[in-house]
Amino acid sequence: MASPAVAYARENQQRFLNELKDLLRIPSVSTTPEHKSDVQRAAEFVANDLRRIGMENVEIIHGKGHPLIYADWLHAAGKPTVLCYAHYDVQPPDPLDEWVSAPFEPTERNNNLYARGAVDDKGQLWLELKAIESLFKGHGGTLPINVKFILEGEEEVGGESIADYIRKQKAKLKADFALVCDTELFAPDLPTLCVGLRGLVYTEIEAVGPKTDLHSGMYGGAAPNPFFALIEIISKLKDAKGKVLIPGFYSKVKAPTAAELKAWKRLPFKEEHYRKTEVGSKVLTGEPGYSVLYRTWARPTLEVHGMPGGFTGEGAKTVIPARAKAKVSMRLVPNQNPDDILKRYKAFVKKLTPKGIETNIKVWSTGRACVVDTNNKYVKAATEALHEVFKKDTVFIRSGGSIPIVTDFQDVLRIPSVMMGFGLPDDNLHAPNEKFHIPNFYRGIESICLFFETLGR
Amino acid sequence: MASPAVAYARENQQRFLNELKDLLRIPSVSTTPEHKSDVQRAAEFVANDLRRIGMENVEIIHGKGHPLIYADWLHAAGKPTVLCYAHYDVQPPDPLDEWVSAPFEPTERNNNLYARGAVDDKGQLWLELKAIESLFKGHGGTLPINVKFILEGEEEVGGESIADYIRKQKAKLKADFALVCDTELFAPDLPTLCVGLRGLVYTEIEAVGPKTDLHSGMYGGAAPNPFFALIEIISKLKDAKGKVLIPGFYSKVKAPTAAELKAWKRLPFKEEHYRKTEVGSKVLTGEPGYSVLYRTWARPTLEVHGMPGGFTGEGAKTVIPARAKAKVSMRLVPNQNPDDILKRYKAFVKKLTPKGIETNIKVWSTGRACVVDTNNKYVKAATEALHEVFKKDTVFIRSGGSIPIVTDFQDVLRIPSVMMGFGLPDDNLHAPNEKFHIPNFYRGIESICLFFETLGR
Repeated sequence: MASPAVAYARENQQRFLNELKDLLRIPSVSTTPEHKSDVQRAAEFVANDLRRIGMENVEIIHGKGHPLIYADWLHAAGKPTVLCYAHYDVQPPDPLDEWVSAPFEPTERNNNLYARGAVDDKGQLWLELKAIESLFKGHGGTLPINVKFILEGEEEVGGESIADYIRKQKAKLKADFALVCDTELFAPDLPTLCVGLRGLVYTEIEAVGPKTDLHSGMYGGAAPNPFFALIEIISKLKDAKGKVLIPGFYSKVKAPTAAELKAWKRLPFKEEHYRKTEVGSKVLTGEPGYSVLYRTWARPTLEVHGMPGGFTGEGAKTVIPARAKAKVSMRLVPNQNPDDILKRYKAFVKKLTPKGIETNIKVWSTGRACVVDTNNKYVKAATEALHEVFKKDTVFIRSGGSIPIVTDFQDVLRIPSVMMGFGLPDDNLHAPNEKFHIPNFYRGIESICLFFETLGR
Repeated sequence: MASPAVAYARENQQRFLNELKDLLRIPSVSTTPEHKSDVQRAAEFVANDLRRIGMENVEIIHGKGHPLIYADWLHAAGKPTVLCYAHYDVQPPDPLDEWVSAPFEPTERNNNLYARGAVDDKGQLWLELKAIESLFKGHGGTLPINVKFILEGEEEVGGESIADYIRKQKAKLKADFALVCDTELFAPDLPTLCVGLRGLVYTEIEAVGPKTDLHSGMYGGAAPNPFFALIEIISKLKDAKGKVLIPGFYSKVKAPTAAELKAWKRLPFKEEHYRKTEVGSKVLTGEPGYSVLYRTWARPTLEVHGMPGGFTGEGAKTVIPARAKAKVSMRLVPNQNPDDILKRYKAFVKKLTPKGIETNIKVWSTGRACVVDTNNKYVKAATEALHEVFKKDTVFIRSGGSIPIVTDFQDVLRIPSVMMGFGLPDDNLHAPNEKFHIPNFYRGIESICLFFETLGR
């Protein structure tokens, strides 16, 4: 291997891993106020290392929530600029008694490093930093491309700080593309880039009937029941086979290319295994004629998440509630416009609202789907780098979820994201015994070194 | 008026009212543990008066909850036996700041007595006792019929003590009919007997889908959603017009007689007033072709009371829950058998359950509808007595609710209940400023005196 950066990374693997362990020992749980100073401490740990390895303008940005970290190095004239993203906060470790080793005492077993945040996302944040350190060392104190970092401490709580900052600091964060290290390999040893995310429209329908809660004995048969109204409405939003019935809902849907669909078929995906081990239901559901990956990655859906209101305690209470609510969301795919979908949805809900009931719709969030062109030069360079490390062709996958920061990079900064992640499907994200397969930590560092070297050429 | 009992009652009105005030001063709120000794105190107050007026075998029966009170006088050989029921516990007085006078300081205004429990049900309990006292006094220390009392202190908390006791003490409580004073007049000055109650089957459907809560982004389109399953199922249990779609649901329904329906039409009921002031919705709902009174009194219904599960907090959480529940009840009318209806309901829910979902049904309660034959001699005697007091014909109404004790009297003791109540529709039961119209307290005493004298002849 001709890369001096990779050579340096290999020589320093053990130190890099030890540093990551130090970062993992800081319980930077963003969801609970008692860890606020730990989150702050983790931010300082990261900022100090950014300074130490040679990044400039390192800044801890305090706002309403947990701090952001910015840094840059912009002396590669004429070369592309990357905006590196990751997050240094973690999920709570509960339930504690299911951990084999303590969540904030990083422990190696079977070539895995066990700790809360090992892979989500401190390990992947650290591999970004260590790639940059290796590049600095291998290139005589310079980098092959321009690099900016924007790191956050609120990802696990859905904090707004980073989105606000991006909107206010478009010039400062200007870049040609973003590198997001917060995803995973589709299967062990299979280099993977995520190139598509679904969008989201999340709403809450409130149905209002009687002026006050009524006794269902006295009034049942005369008083409109908001729960029944919601049931009537929602039952007509989607049919039993999973087809959304909102008029025009599918009219703009852009299907994946034939090449993409063909590639998905080659992925090592076993539907029966997925049903048993991941979903755990008797059968899978969804639109007939589409594969599971197609349905969850590239078809829009409509789901109900909860129906607050009325009596939800133990036992029986015979109430016709004055009001009830339903949390209903839609996942969107490329070319569906959230505003357009929302308009159609609202009109249809109004139309379906039975007499005697008033419905009001609150919108909790909207975001477009993202799709990254696999022919863009950043993706191409990334696949070359991954091939050199893994000795395999990269697979392009999508995710059915939404990563709000990627949508913001696309919609606000107008840059594509390279979602290059090194986790494994069984790494126990958000669960006890979270781990990072140590060879993947090293592969991640080397892949980024080679990726940026390629772009610098 | 030839009744010596009524003459005595009239002479003692003020004392009877003062005694009631003493009873009302005891805050026998059965719903909160801190009033446990007050409930006990109220039981003793009532038991002492039962002894004082001449009842025998007076007994305070302690069990798991608040005590029952039993008493009898069984020396009217060859005459019918009545089982008098009422309850001495009350609802909490909250919200306190809406009371014009303190809830446990009985106060007279405009010929009304204001206090928590004034009409529900201490006032109506006390008029039963004062009628018996007047009968003893007017009949030389004897009663015209045999009398048993069973009084409870758990009505407002749905306590099981009385139901358990009835099942265990069938012989002790044997009677020809029950007198239940816990209802109201249909309109002021209109003597009213309630002769029908709807039955109830209250269930909870649990729908189980994935083995664990799933992210709706990752799994939406493949994983079955228990909420959507419940929505699909329940939307097919009842149509938009209010017709229940469970096969055979209406097959046994016994319609009211033509005479009963005709009588209901003559009742002073204004649908528009009811819609505006009681229900407060834009329109009323329910099966076309049936009046409001018919729909709420004599047609079976199906309602949803709450749908626990999933995410019900503020904001957005994109979860496909592993399980969700729906509280669904049916009100039944005469000749519908709860077991038969439950069987049909369970089978239909199973049939409607979509693939990938498992449904389990828990039954919280079942009870048959009650209907009292208006030609039975107890009802006839009651109407005669009411006519003498009110100088008007009695109206026979039903209630859409269920009174479990009446169902137990019917199903366990096999006796009909005369539901003779003297409250008014605006007496603020369970609300601030509960009141009892004082003339109705006296009319109640006199009506029972005449009722029992008639039966003793």
